[in-house]
Amino acid sequence: MTREQVFNFAAGPSVLPRQALERAAAEMLNYRGSGMSVMEMSHRSPWFQEIFDDAKGKLKKALDVPDSHEILFLQGGASLQFSMVPLNLMEGGTADYAVTGNFSNIAMKEAKKYGTVHVAASSQDDDFSYIPAQEQLTISPEAKYFYYCANNTIYGTAWNYVPETAAPLVCDMSSEILSRRVDVAKYGLIFAGAQKNMAPAGLTVVILDKALAGREAPYTPLMLSYKTMIEKDSMYNTPPCWCIYMLGLTLDWLESQGGVAGVEAIKHEKAAVIYDIIDNSRLYKGCARPEARSDMNVTFRTGDADLDAAFAKQAQAQGLLNLKGHRSVGGLRASLYNAQPMEGVQVLAAFMKKFEVEHHV
Amino acid sequence: MTREQVFNFAAGPSVLPRQALERAAAEMLNYRGSGMSVMEMSHRSPWFQEIFDDAKGKLKKALDVPDSHEILFLQGGASLQFSMVPLNLMEGGTADYAVTGNFSNIAMKEAKKYGTVHVAASSQDDDFSYIPAQEQLTISPEAKYFYYCANNTIYGTAWNYVPETAAPLVCDMSSEILSRRVDVAKYGLIFAGAQKNMAPAGLTVVILDKALAGREAPYTPLMLSYKTMIEKDSMYNTPPCWCIYMLGLTLDWLESQGGVAGVEAIKHEKAAVIYDIIDNSRLYKGCARPEARSDMNVTFRTGDADLDAAFAKQAQAQGLLNLKGHRSVGGLRASLYNAQPMEGVQVLAAFMKKFEVEHHV
Repeated sequence: MTREQVFNFAAGPSVLPRQALERAAAEMLNYRGSGMSVMEMSHRSPWFQEIFDDAKGKLKKALDVPDSHEILFLQGGASLQFSMVPLNLMEGGTADYAVTGNFSNIAMKEAKKYGTVHVAASSQDDDFSYIPAQEQLTISPEAKYFYYCANNTIYGTAWNYVPETAAPLVCDMSSEILSRRVDVAKYGLIFAGAQKNMAPAGLTVVILDKALAGREAPYTPLMLSYKTMIEKDSMYNTPPCWCIYMLGLTLDWLESQGGVAGVEAIKHEKAAVIYDIIDNSRLYKGCARPEARSDMNVTFRTGDADLDAAFAKQAQAQGLLNLKGHRSVGGLRASLYNAQPMEGVQVLAAFMKKFEVEHHV
Repeated sequence: MTREQVFNFAAGPSVLPRQALERAAAEMLNYRGSGMSVMEMSHRSPWFQEIFDDAKGKLKKALDVPDSHEILFLQGGASLQFSMVPLNLMEGGTADYAVTGNFSNIAMKEAKKYGTVHVAASSQDDDFSYIPAQEQLTISPEAKYFYYCANNTIYGTAWNYVPETAAPLVCDMSSEILSRRVDVAKYGLIFAGAQKNMAPAGLTVVILDKALAGREAPYTPLMLSYKTMIEKDSMYNTPPCWCIYMLGLTLDWLESQGGVAGVEAIKHEKAAVIYDIIDNSRLYKGCARPEARSDMNVTFRTGDADLDAAFAKQAQAQGLLNLKGHRSVGGLRASLYNAQPMEGVQVLAAFMKKFEVEHHV
């Protein structure tokens, strides 16, 4: 297939802005007169330092990160943050975890290695189809931090409020970062794997209140100390240079879309096109409760696993890629990240309607 | 500058085969009819699984990895292995470390967090200019492993023999992997950051004897368990997909060069061109003792820091990039990794001769 025949609904890694890819292709053999590919540059060279500073500066601007907070470019994915957070912030004490999906559940279990975990809320009782309300949170007075995952990629739910807690908020924003404005000052630590709204897999962005650094357990691996990474401006060792470069290119594109406010203005509109079909369908059922729905990951099912499979297969054949739900839950899922154009959403909507007519009995 | 006007002698990240970069540029917007960039592919998709299996299979073939050993594609750089190795293999006991440069020194210090370290050899007494001989190694009978760094990028030295030890060998091969044939069966664990002879920064290759997995300390972060990564075939979470793809392209190029044996046949010849100038010069002095010289990183100096700086600056202006020595030691360094063509070496040689004529007083 050609690129023009395809819309990619993958949950991550996922579609990137065409403009970013075109620039990367054009600069591949010679980055702006350096005679080198970005992949061949010493990370200590002025060429790369400029790429690094540019991406960091643009991210700071896009998310309006206050000077109290540091932006780190790390490796290992969000999964490594599941360990880094308690290693650095738990101090062997207690931490509150809200378990609203697979990844917050893994994070919660991982934290048990390093201290006492208190499950402050869980939506497991109804298949993670909802987000507990503020008054349902049971907050520990002694908690070192309160941990939650803002958007649950697998279940298609999102926190539509920021929890109010005495302890610093730690938030996994992997699948919604840069899709809506965030008051970063409200958070002790935000982290996000890059492979949804930012860059290719291999980069993890951490934004943390510098006051929280320096509390790591003595057995913390040197690469897993936020303090070390702040002191070395993410270059204790060679960072994932290519991903940082791609992040810069994505942020250039984001700016052309009016920044975070620009994509935020249309994200709900995009998701509503699909949710509207689901709500008016006799075939499709949404997986998440309406008030907890994610604009990034729309999850639905027909109720018949074979029909779900037929849907995904036919869609794939027509260039609507990666609509199968996560392997742990089945069903269907359309991820509508920033780089997913409204055109892709409309083509999917038309396909859904046609499929319903053909298959509803 | 154009790419043709440049030779890049960076110590890492460093020059990549032009063929690999051209392919990456051509496939950037549409990988072989998928309609997607490799950076946009779900790591669980058949498209990416094929890229992953292909790169792993080619690496297994290139290094003739026996079935007793597993190849892992990890993140975090060699520096994260400095922690992963003792976390997984030390079992709170003793390990032998040979300290022959900056990176083995950091690795040794890191291991102290997790057990008892015995320095089995050190060349610090003569500025890491040599490699201890087998008979100089003081090996602990109770050691869980013997650790060394095969090629010391900063000092320009290389182990020209494989230590004989009762305990499993653990070897940092970051800056020489794929440059010479290795009997992998002799090693318990080999690791290498990709950004010298393999791929862009962001990928770490680990090759380990499967029998050594499963001994990790209880506080080992889940992403840092070799056992977990073996069980998940490096995909516990999203791997650094782009780097793995680039590794595959580099291995295609390596095959066209006759594989590891092919590049091994000329690596010494390339290095000898520069060492020959040094040995016959009244201006340049080699930093490493002749018997310990690395073919990958040729280190030298004029003895005058200002003149070294002038050398690097003039070379840079003529397209001979990144000849400055590591910031911790100064001097000059020419890295001659696999993708450095003999032509680049000859242009450097001509520059060195001309510079000597102009500056030797």
